[in-house]
Order: sequence, then C-alpha cells, then structure tokens
Amino acid sequence: MYKLVMMRHGESAWNRENRFTGWTDVDLTDAGVEEARRAGRLMKEKGLVFDLAFTSLLKRAIKTLDTSLEELDQLWLPVEKHWRLNERHYGALQGLNKAETAARFGDAQVLIWRRAYAIAPDPLSLDDPRHPRFDARYAGIDAHALPATECLKDTVARVLPYWNERIAPAVRRGQRVLIAAHGNSLRALVKYLDCLGEEEIVGLNIPTAQPLVYELDADLRPLSHYYLADPDEIARAQAAVAAQGKAKA
Amino acid sequence: MYKLVMMRHGESAWNRENRFTGWTDVDLTDAGVEEARRAGRLMKEKGLVFDLAFTSLLKRAIKTLDTSLEELDQLWLPVEKHWRLNERHYGALQGLNKAETAARFGDAQVLIWRRAYAIAPDPLSLDDPRHPRFDARYAGIDAHALPATECLKDTVARVLPYWNERIAPAVRRGQRVLIAAHGNSLRALVKYLDCLGEEEIVGLNIPTAQPLVYELDADLRPLSHYYLADPDEIARAQAAVAAQGKAKA
Repeated sequence: MYKLVMMRHGESAWNRENRFTGWTDVDLTDAGVEEARRAGRLMKEKGLVFDLAFTSLLKRAIKTLDTSLEELDQLWLPVEKHWRLNERHYGALQGLNKAETAARFGDAQVLIWRRAYAIAPDPLSLDDPRHPRFDARYAGIDAHALPATECLKDTVARVLPYWNERIAPAVRRGQRVLIAAHGNSLRALVKYLDCLGEEEIVGLNIPTAQPLVYELDADLRPLSHYYLADPDEIARAQAAVAAQGKAKA
Repeated sequence: MYKLVMMRHGESAWNRENRFTGWTDVDLTDAGVEEARRAGRLMKEKGLVFDLAFTSLLKRAIKTLDTSLEELDQLWLPVEKHWRLNERHYGALQGLNKAETAARFGDAQVLIWRRAYAIAPDPLSLDDPRHPRFDARYAGIDAHALPATECLKDTVARVLPYWNERIAPAVRRGQRVLIAAHGNSLRALVKYLDCLGEEEIVGLNIPTAQPLVYELDADLRPLSHYYLADPDEIARAQAAVAAQGKAKA
C-alpha cells in the first residue's frame, strides 16, 4: 500500500482580500505562514515522513511547503517545482474581487466561473502583460502550451501528464510523496484519483494547509483518504472556502 | 563567458557560539536570516538573475538560499540539494567550542585542524550516533562513502565529482547558477577553480552571506572573481572569520 499526502497552501493575501488569484504570484499572509507551521507540526506529531515533495512555481505553495518541511525537520527533502501544479488559471478574472464580481454578474455567474467544470472565464490576450509568457519562470515553455484561462477541465488536462510522468512513478518506486499545491490543481488530482464526476467535484472544497492523506493500492487506486486534523476543524475550514465568492461574504 | 555565483550561509547558532559545526544541522540565527535577506536584496539591486541553484542538505545553507531567493523574487527557481555540498565533516570535533579547544590543545593545533590541508581530526566511529549513516537524509548512500571526518583535501575530493557531474554541465549549458553552501565546500571549489596551492587555500577566508561572482571562460577557467558588496565590508567580514578559533576570540 502506498501513501500520498496533499496540501493546499495557507491563506494568501488575495484569499484574504477575496480576489481571484489564479497564476498571480501572491504571497502568504502571516496567518497563512502560521497555518503552514501548524500543518508541519501536525504531520510531525502523526509521525509522517517523506522522501520527495512536489510543488508549483507559485510562492504561496512553495512557502507553505518549505515552512511545513522546516517544522518536520525535513528541509533537506528533494523538491520538484513545476508549472503543471499551479493554480487553475483564472483568465481575465485574475485580480478581481470575488464579492464585487458576484454583485455585478450575480452569484450564479460567479459560481459558474468558479465551479462549472467546462466553462472558462475570458482569456488573457497573448499581448496582455499578465500573460504567463512574459514571466521568466515560464521561459522555455511553448507560449501556446501556457494557459491564458482555464476551466477545471483544462486544469485536469494539464495536471494529469505531470501526475503520470513524475508523481505516480515516484509513488510506485515506494517514495513517500508530499504535494503542496492549490485548491484547483489538487481538486483536479482528487477528481482523477477518486474517479469523481463533474457534479461531484463541483461540490468538493479543499481547506487550506490541511494535510490530506491518500492510501493507494498497487495500481494507485485509493483505498481511503482522510484529513490529518480532527473532523470538526476540517468541517469549519471547508465551510469557509465554500462561503468565498458570495456577494455578501 | 559564463557567470557563477557562490554564497556561504549566514550566521548559524554555532558560528555565534564559536563551535565546530561540520555536518551538525544547526539553524541560522536571526542575524543569519537578515544577512541572507541583505544578500538577496544586493543581488537584486545588481540585476543578478538565475536559472538554477545548488545547495547542501543542511538547513543553514538551504534557508540562506531560500531567503535570498525570496528577496530576488525567484523562489520558483529549481533547486538541487546534495550532500556533496555539505560543510567539511569535522569528525570528533563536532560540537566542541573552538576557543575552549584552542585553550586546551593550543592555537597551533586548532589551526592545524582548521586549516591544514591534509590533516583531519579524529573520526566519528561507525557506531557513534552522530555518524551520518544514522541520519535519514543520507539513507541510500553507501555508509562507507559518507565521511566520519575530513580534512580540506577530503572535502575537495567529494565536492569535485558533484561539480563535474552536475554544476559544470549546467554552467556550460548557459544556465546562470547560484551555489549556496559552506565555508569549506566553497573553499574546495575556489581552490579547484583558481588552481590554488595548499598554502594559498589555508589563508583564504570566505565571509558569510556575501555573493561571490566568478566569470568563467568557455573551458570554465576563471577570468575574474569579485564580491558583490563593497570591498571595505568584505575586508571586515573576512577578518571576523579569521579571528574565529583563537583562544581569546
């Protein structure tokens, strides 16, 4: 049996401001750093040990990982960072406040943009200075392979090759893997692993900085999954994520 | 022409306590973190940009790297961590206070242990709990390949294969490389690059958290090297390193 741990980054400045972040490289808040520390301490208490970690190219995930590894006293762990673990690209919505966007377009439209499986917001144009092709960290990647907007279906499509090529082989080699990533890149992975339908994934919220353990069989099919923290804490955290993006939130 | 930047970690708790550290995984002091921040800001001011970073498996080097990369806004950089960039292993001296050791054995003996090119302190026994073979980060490495003590000559011998196999090829590919490591693993590299004699390297001190730039020709022979900081600051920092380990220091 294999074990895999996923963790969404701690609170970022734009989580707090309730803005659509996507690929914008927003930092953790002090509270987000503290969440990451708590996650690290919890994993240490529960005796988790890792051989390898994966994260995105965005600092909120990288710092969540580094901070929790420091608490685990595993800062020396090999870490592979890759753009395919980045957050879902939010296209032209990036930077907009979720509640204002909801007030303007209605909760229903925002819920579609946030949660519809196959409907993406308007893309950034190739000339938009926010387009990833202008960012040094994506140099060397074909500009047309880089997203300018995504629905969750698109995120699934770009996360899975990385799972198949890099993460799954490591798990199969017996390496104990920690993935520190984002709400939607992790939902993409969860949808795939648990064979969830499009409806099911719409209703699934992953709380920040809560280690989520998957136990997998020899074919990497999930036998079970659970959060390390106690269920009450997880329920509160999930409700907070679900409340984001409502006009009155 | 290629460019390569090396940086010794910021002040660690045992630098401050003036103890022989070696492979002991001692943390940075707050002052050491601040040094790393300053180094990152200085590199940013001077317009340095990197494609790839290398560091050791010891947290004082990893945190110095991460902290300066954060200031550079390059936390997303690929980082390769390897035991061959660790500090010189100080054998049975690890943990001892340098001034007390000097008072007991004499400045001359301590200077030999610290600076003689080919004389190592007594080794840790294979059963000593401090032996690296008991540390999870070195699992998978042949216990007999792991040092139990080293003189600088030994450090050179284990750093060079890593230079040749991993760092030099990256530089030759045109990647702009940052190495965050330790006083003696960097002296090993400097000795090799500058073809210094054993006498010359004995007198060479590398100050903490000061980016050291090497400009290299197509065969990776140094054309020049310089510290990014102003020369007065470097002279003060080098004098402070040289004064360590004297009985009255």
